[in-house]
Amino acid sequence: MNQRPPRTLATPTADLVARFAEIVGPAYALTDPADQQPYLTEWRDLYIGRTPVVLRPGSTDEVARIMALASEAQVAIVPQGGNTGLVGAQIPSESATEIVLSLGRMKCIRAIDPAGASMTVEAGLTLSEVQAAAAEQGRLFPLSMASEGSCTIGGNLATNAGGVAVLAYGTARNLTLGLEVVTAAGEIWDGLKSLKKDNTGYDLKDLFIGSEGTLGIITAATLKLFPAPREKATALAAVPRLDDLLPLFRLAADEAGSALTAFEFLSERALAFVAKHTPGARLPFANAAPWYVLLEISGMEEGKAESFLERILTAATERGLVSDAVIARSLVQAQDLWRLREAMSEAQKGEGGSIKHDISVPTPQIAEFIVRAAEVVEGICAGARPVPFGHFGDGNVHYNVSQPIGMDRTRYLALWEPMSRAVHGVVAELGGSISAEHGIGRLKRAELPLVKSAAEMDMMRRIKAALDPKGILNPGKLL
Amino acid sequence: MNQRPPRTLATPTADLVARFAEIVGPAYALTDPADQQPYLTEWRDLYIGRTPVVLRPGSTDEVARIMALASEAQVAIVPQGGNTGLVGAQIPSESATEIVLSLGRMKCIRAIDPAGASMTVEAGLTLSEVQAAAAEQGRLFPLSMASEGSCTIGGNLATNAGGVAVLAYGTARNLTLGLEVVTAAGEIWDGLKSLKKDNTGYDLKDLFIGSEGTLGIITAATLKLFPAPREKATALAAVPRLDDLLPLFRLAADEAGSALTAFEFLSERALAFVAKHTPGARLPFANAAPWYVLLEISGMEEGKAESFLERILTAATERGLVSDAVIARSLVQAQDLWRLREAMSEAQKGEGGSIKHDISVPTPQIAEFIVRAAEVVEGICAGARPVPFGHFGDGNVHYNVSQPIGMDRTRYLALWEPMSRAVHGVVAELGGSISAEHGIGRLKRAELPLVKSAAEMDMMRRIKAALDPKGILNPGKLL
Repeated sequence: MNQRPPRTLATPTADLVARFAEIVGPAYALTDPADQQPYLTEWRDLYIGRTPVVLRPGSTDEVARIMALASEAQVAIVPQGGNTGLVGAQIPSESATEIVLSLGRMKCIRAIDPAGASMTVEAGLTLSEVQAAAAEQGRLFPLSMASEGSCTIGGNLATNAGGVAVLAYGTARNLTLGLEVVTAAGEIWDGLKSLKKDNTGYDLKDLFIGSEGTLGIITAATLKLFPAPREKATALAAVPRLDDLLPLFRLAADEAGSALTAFEFLSERALAFVAKHTPGARLPFANAAPWYVLLEISGMEEGKAESFLERILTAATERGLVSDAVIARSLVQAQDLWRLREAMSEAQKGEGGSIKHDISVPTPQIAEFIVRAAEVVEGICAGARPVPFGHFGDGNVHYNVSQPIGMDRTRYLALWEPMSRAVHGVVAELGGSISAEHGIGRLKRAELPLVKSAAEMDMMRRIKAALDPKGILNPGKLL
Repeated sequence: MNQRPPRTLATPTADLVARFAEIVGPAYALTDPADQQPYLTEWRDLYIGRTPVVLRPGSTDEVARIMALASEAQVAIVPQGGNTGLVGAQIPSESATEIVLSLGRMKCIRAIDPAGASMTVEAGLTLSEVQAAAAEQGRLFPLSMASEGSCTIGGNLATNAGGVAVLAYGTARNLTLGLEVVTAAGEIWDGLKSLKKDNTGYDLKDLFIGSEGTLGIITAATLKLFPAPREKATALAAVPRLDDLLPLFRLAADEAGSALTAFEFLSERALAFVAKHTPGARLPFANAAPWYVLLEISGMEEGKAESFLERILTAATERGLVSDAVIARSLVQAQDLWRLREAMSEAQKGEGGSIKHDISVPTPQIAEFIVRAAEVVEGICAGARPVPFGHFGDGNVHYNVSQPIGMDRTRYLALWEPMSRAVHGVVAELGGSISAEHGIGRLKRAELPLVKSAAEMDMMRRIKAALDPKGILNPGKLL
């Protein structure tokens, strides 16, 4: 996946690097390879880039000055948050010509307004830090995912992150009221409004969110806050048949409405991997079931959520949609159930190589996707072991496929591209998305024109050219 | 507010009009002024346009052929839905050179999927028709507003309509999963996905939504459906002080969370106008209060919403935030309470001329806005009577100002521009929006550069030029 910068972009000279360094100060311009290393290596080692300098600005003004100089000199800039991205968008190419701009020092909470239910934060705060600041005011910032201790809110917004709370609260895009963005030319757009309604012109906010650093650099955001639920009830249900998942979801969603805050699913094999490889993981059932669902009900009234959940599970059991279920009777038990779901990606490492897909289809098509994807996977690599799991209520399946037992890991991973093409072919036929929440980056860039119409690709390229005419923002990513 | 088309645009010849007419067939190409009249007159007579022909295509393909011809001939196209817009975006200029493209014949419900909680509809269905189709399947499409019997879903999306259900469900943008759009060049973009998560490229959907027909023509949309609430509880509360509105809202929102589906407010004078001018309107209180709030709680469990609402009102009364309250004991009583709120705009006509503002500020700033706006209004026209009302929970105030008693209506309405500038000045200082839900259109176009930064105007113009390089889509609107 080696890439060269477009011909029009310049290779930074030592003089130019010094001018960039002057903007942030020498302590925050990293040129030593040892210092740079954490910014250049994707966490699964899928991408390892090179750069003349990693810049760590401390303010929006410094970011603006960096972009103004980059625009003048026609040098490529790769914005980076917590370096937890899964598609390589945050890593520079191997050409050593692209400058990394890390937002990690911009950690100011500029305002927090519990009465107005909003907060304004800078891009470099980790998601955990944002959640904690909201919680201190008795409010909920609901975005949540396994990487929340490391990922930054700026990166969450640049990639329109999803996670485990999308069902009730939406993606990062839905949680954002306003943005501050530095443009490719180094201008600062102050779009930090905390308004729920604002119909004054084009929706620039949502254009920047999810653009993976290719249209502008998000330096701060005004986020929505929510009332913190008084209580949560959590259950793990064993489900006898694949086709039972959808009616169980509908039953829960119809009964609970927006109080249904999680409906996550795992296959039998996925849970078996967790049981085998996760220290301390305890399976609550004596007998295995083909499918498991983690349900969570959040309530505003004390002492109601659990009985509500019980009623849903009783109705589901009567209809044969659930063969067994356990309700958490304490916070610790609830955390234990959540750990079974969250440990999944990590647990899978114990089973050798994994080819991963992050797809979505309409919820009524999930079962058909799982059946058909298993067929195409078997056709490409007999014995490969699919472990579907994910956010059922969002139609989002993390369709990971572990290598056949005993196969060479490298040989297996060499099948990534043909297997992905085949799985994504099924996704396309079902009207789905080849990237539900991780984005395009470098990983899926070549595939994008295969799943998008020429009309859509053309519009995206026109918008890119309009907002970044010199092509200096994160080249070779997304488009 | 007379406008000429940009110099580059052509005046359609009779031959060209005949070519356009051929696309839709003679019955659907209106050239007789009497036939055209309903498409050329804004419903409050604020704008009256002229056109060589009103085209009424019956399919996306016909819309695409119209746009391809318009692009080739460089002729301006003004898209129109139900002609209920409040800022003149749907009316052609007086130059008689712009062709009106009415989507009103495109009324197909292409798909409805209650299990997947989505439906795909064409642009010309009225909002009521969309709501009814969802209700037939036991689902809720929550967008709702006074004009729902006439406005079309295409127009709702082109303007990112708001209405009375934004608090719990969001604006039209938040309710849309995918779009079909015909571009300025006459290409069809099929973005009709019913996916909750899709991170594959730029968010074109949200760029077209709210762009008021200046970037493309929305021909169909995939919409989100919701579980229909089992029950609703509705109350009208009398509130003794302006400063009590915010704590009352926070109390209700914190207690009810997403079950709080309406928190609408009216001033004493607003309700008095309704009582005076609306046939059959009955005020439930013996004594007038300075402020009134209409609260609605929607519940998924039978028999809970009313007791929940009672608890909120009891707590509010104990804290002195509410001086009197009435809870609807039947559907008819609930409709009576809603009518008090919905009759407001119409009732105001009985009091002579009205200068209207559709603003939003963060909810904590609403009280300050109301105080300061009254001061600037009095400074511009002594005796003018503000009747603030609207969607408190969204920070959205319909700040209508009735003329002083006995003043000449025309003389009063001549103050529209200075009064709006002054009111919008207060809005800007409070970090608000000069158009919360109605859009910019022609009415607020000249004001837009005054409230937006140069950087934002520049980005919007670049995007307009990228997607409509010939400037044929709704010229003179928004930008």
